[in-house]
Amino acid sequence: MSIHEMISTHPHVAGHTNDPLTKAIAACYECAETCTSCADACLGEKPDMLPNLTQCIRLNSDCADICNAAGRIATRRTGSNEALIKSVLAACAEAAQRCGDECGKHAEMHEHCRICAEACRRCVAACNEAVGTISA
Amino acid sequence: MSIHEMISTHPHVAGHTNDPLTKAIAACYECAETCTSCADACLGEKPDMLPNLTQCIRLNSDCADICNAAGRIATRRTGSNEALIKSVLAACAEAAQRCGDECGKHAEMHEHCRICAEACRRCVAACNEAVGTISA
Amino acid sequence: MSIHEMISTHPHVAGHTNDPLTKAIAACYECAETCTSCADACLGEKPDMLPNLTQCIRLNSDCADICNAAGRIATRRTGSNEALIKSVLAACAEAAQRCGDECGKHAEMHEHCRICAEACRRCVAACNEAVGTISA
Amino acid sequence: MSIHEMISTHPHVAGHTNDPLTKAIAACYECAETCTSCADACLGEKPDMLPNLTQCIRLNSDCADICNAAGRIATRRTGSNEALIKSVLAACAEAAQRCGDECGKHAEMHEHCRICAEACRRCVAACNEAVGTISA
Repeated sequence: MSIHEMISTHPHVAGHTNDPLTKAIAACYECAETCTSCADACLGEKPDMLPNLTQCIRLNSDCADICNAAGRIATRRTGSNEALIKSVLAACAEAAQRCGDECGKHAEMHEHCRICAEACRRCVAACNEAVGTISA
Repeated sequence: MSIHEMISTHPHVAGHTNDPLTKAIAACYECAETCTSCADACLGEKPDMLPNLTQCIRLNSDCADICNAAGRIATRRTGSNEALIKSVLAACAEAAQRCGDECGKHAEMHEHCRICAEACRRCVAACNEAVGTISA
Repeated sequence: MSIHEMISTHPHVAGHTNDPLTKAIAACYECAETCTSCADACLGEKPDMLPNLTQCIRLNSDCADICNAAGRIATRRTGSNEALIKSVLAACAEAAQRCGDECGKHAEMHEHCRICAEACRRCVAACNEAVGTISA
Repeated sequence: MSIHEMISTHPHVAGHTNDPLTKAIAACYECAETCTSCADACLGEKPDMLPNLTQCIRLNSDCADICNAAGRIATRRTGSNEALIKSVLAACAEAAQRCGDECGKHAEMHEHCRICAEACRRCVAACNEAVGTISA
């Protein structure tokens, strides 16, 4: 299953998917999963490292929340709510930008932050591209 | 318990809460709950009414998702992510405005839509007021 | 708005609410909000206290997730999924029991843990009572 | 990124992943995404088909909620909460079983239900296998 394949079966979509949008949805969900895992991995680091990771845990948690909401909202194709999809994907790009920057600072020390920073950057790029395709 | 009381105990807040913000958090959570219930109540209406309620169900679902994310994100006081709180509350106000307008159309026919429209309007007002207090 | 009032307007419920169930839903949502806030408040504590709070943050996060899912699932009255409501409320009681026990250990030191332990206990009691009313 | 790769970098896991567990997490997240999309696609079907799909929409919504919570909870490796992971994955298998059975009834008529029924079945199998590996 890919979210692209699933959305292409929606009766109102009928195969005519907005490809940047389906890529953004997949990137949002991936980023939500990665940030949830990175927040937890940061929390599991040694006591002397922990104080340096609290901002990272907070940004990871926020990013996971908005990415998950964005993935769900941008998936829906019944009726319309395009302006909200645009706002939510923009908020998602903003959250992932800040989270990716913070994770990037810890990327050499913590492999989970390195992987998470990459997922955040993919999410930023995919959301920004999708936002450009929505006229609302 | 009120979310206000809880946040006032945060070590970085130390009793100095931003009251419009704590009111917005409570309004977001209330709106998320109400919209989840209204989506389900709309879905349970008689078959002949159902086609007229699909846009309402979709807007309810979207509103519940962004309100829940906003409630969680705006609660966090460790470190900082103020610009995102502002964006998310603004997106929340936008979602609740559209959802409240749609529910308002069905308010005379369906009591759940009348109650939900009111929760949406409170959410819009509370989010807009909180956004005005955040300099980010 | 109360979740009780909202559910009483559902076309299939028609005023005949299961009161222990609506109380459990409200308690689940309250517990989700409180645990989200407590996880963040624990994370904001001083560096020397932080290592002693990582298990608390983890249990808070887990409890918030299952309580939120339980609140949403137990709200739905269209069609039926009673056996799942029972399982989810039981899982919720389990999560809140463990989280409340952990928060209780920190209640004298941290006011947010004291408040959270109380919300968890109310959630355990309300979920257990509701589970007893569901024959599935 | 795979959730497996991400969890393998957790400081307490240190490469020693529980493979059935990481597969269950991925299956839960996939099922949550698919069910969110299927609920929306069902809602977009023609008015005369809609009344026959309300139970499917409800089960999809419930399944998405518990799968998302399960994916998040089962991801965490800091501290411990194994008994809850077991309960949540079991609840997830139960939700996906019922949802997959219902979607299966509409699989010949609706491609989205066919794809969703498969995602549900993979989720049931993966959760059940993971439950068997957790001694809690």
